[in-house]
Amino acid sequence: MDGVKALVFDVFGTVVDWRSSVSRHAAAFGAAHGISADWAAFADGWRGKYQPYMGKVRSGELPWTKLDELHRMGLVELLGEFGIEGVSEGAIDELNLAWHRLDPWPDAPAGLSRLKARYIIGTMSNGNVALMTNMAKYAGLPWDVILGAELAQAYKPDPKTYLTGAELLGLEPGQVMMVAAHQSDLLAAGAQGLKTAFVPRPMEFGPDRRPDPTPDPSFDIVAADFRDLASQMGV
Amino acid sequence: MDGVKALVFDVFGTVVDWRSSVSRHAAAFGAAHGISADWAAFADGWRGKYQPYMGKVRSGELPWTKLDELHRMGLVELLGEFGIEGVSEGAIDELNLAWHRLDPWPDAPAGLSRLKARYIIGTMSNGNVALMTNMAKYAGLPWDVILGAELAQAYKPDPKTYLTGAELLGLEPGQVMMVAAHQSDLLAAGAQGLKTAFVPRPMEFGPDRRPDPTPDPSFDIVAADFRDLASQMGV
Repeated sequence: MDGVKALVFDVFGTVVDWRSSVSRHAAAFGAAHGISADWAAFADGWRGKYQPYMGKVRSGELPWTKLDELHRMGLVELLGEFGIEGVSEGAIDELNLAWHRLDPWPDAPAGLSRLKARYIIGTMSNGNVALMTNMAKYAGLPWDVILGAELAQAYKPDPKTYLTGAELLGLEPGQVMMVAAHQSDLLAAGAQGLKTAFVPRPMEFGPDRRPDPTPDPSFDIVAADFRDLASQMGV
Repeated sequence: MDGVKALVFDVFGTVVDWRSSVSRHAAAFGAAHGISADWAAFADGWRGKYQPYMGKVRSGELPWTKLDELHRMGLVELLGEFGIEGVSEGAIDELNLAWHRLDPWPDAPAGLSRLKARYIIGTMSNGNVALMTNMAKYAGLPWDVILGAELAQAYKPDPKTYLTGAELLGLEPGQVMMVAAHQSDLLAAGAQGLKTAFVPRPMEFGPDRRPDPTPDPSFDIVAADFRDLASQMGV
């Protein structure tokens, strides 16, 4: 991996544990408004809106729309599905910021700090710049640079997302390593010439839904967590 | 300044001492190639190409061109003016990276670290993303986010540069404070509704050319350096 200058990271699921964090923020919202619900199911339902809403942007049904706004559209729909009514616009805005306040997987801050000593580390997320910037401060993620969908105006796995990131770093795709817990993300990055590192996160979807842990043989690195990734990258 | 959520910084001259750093890198280039010259004058001459080359982009004579490339065009011209010939393309590329390796003013890293504890801190420079990212690692600048001309495809003082930065942060212009040693930059940011902080850097152009230290009365804050700025911002 000698030629690698930068590592860029998928964030939701790979760096942070969105499910338990969103569940917790939603439960706090419920407590504040006297609403009972299965908040883990609420988090799953909200995340379930993610691909369909990005699909509306990819298909052109919606113009470019940042993820904060897609999250809010999904939230309004989800509140209806859960039969939750009478919530103010301000309270919906506030709950929507749950995605700005996600806890890291326990190894992530330390692993990122080690990697930062030798490499550029950046986001390569579908989350917008404000979301990523606020989350980094909340979770203690020491990014050198915020890259991703908003700067390319294209959602992963669109090739533009990865290639715009490399271009902004002034690097060839092969000098950039994509790190993700999602094999489809890595396959799309690898197809554009990026190096790939797979870090499985078996608990991303909770205890009852385990993602396939078998890495595609094309991946350059498979690491148990970010500390192991740092060790494998020589730092 | 209660509503301010983010401080964004001019970088060349305000955060880093480009003149002494570029002089030093150019002198090292000279030593390596057996070339003698007044390297401080060389640095001044190179910086002197900055506004004219950005002007070519502003006027449409050049399409959008990132600052690394404008620096290199200016460098080739400058080498000719200094009668320096026979330098390889690779050596020119390497010397061009002098702008990625600029030393901070002594108060900058500590002041930025204090400000980062309470505010989002970001670049608002005409330097491109790669330049800013590499410089931050070289100089120890703890940016939360790299913003600026390349993301707006417009060079300051174009209003788009400032407004794109605020938009990417999900903030209103009045929630963003522009920090600069250059009054024209602050006046342009202030005209778009950003808050303004003036930090004079009397040595930016060396001992023989002192910039006007009298702050425009419109500025929200005038600070002696970044430590004083942090104190005035309550951190």
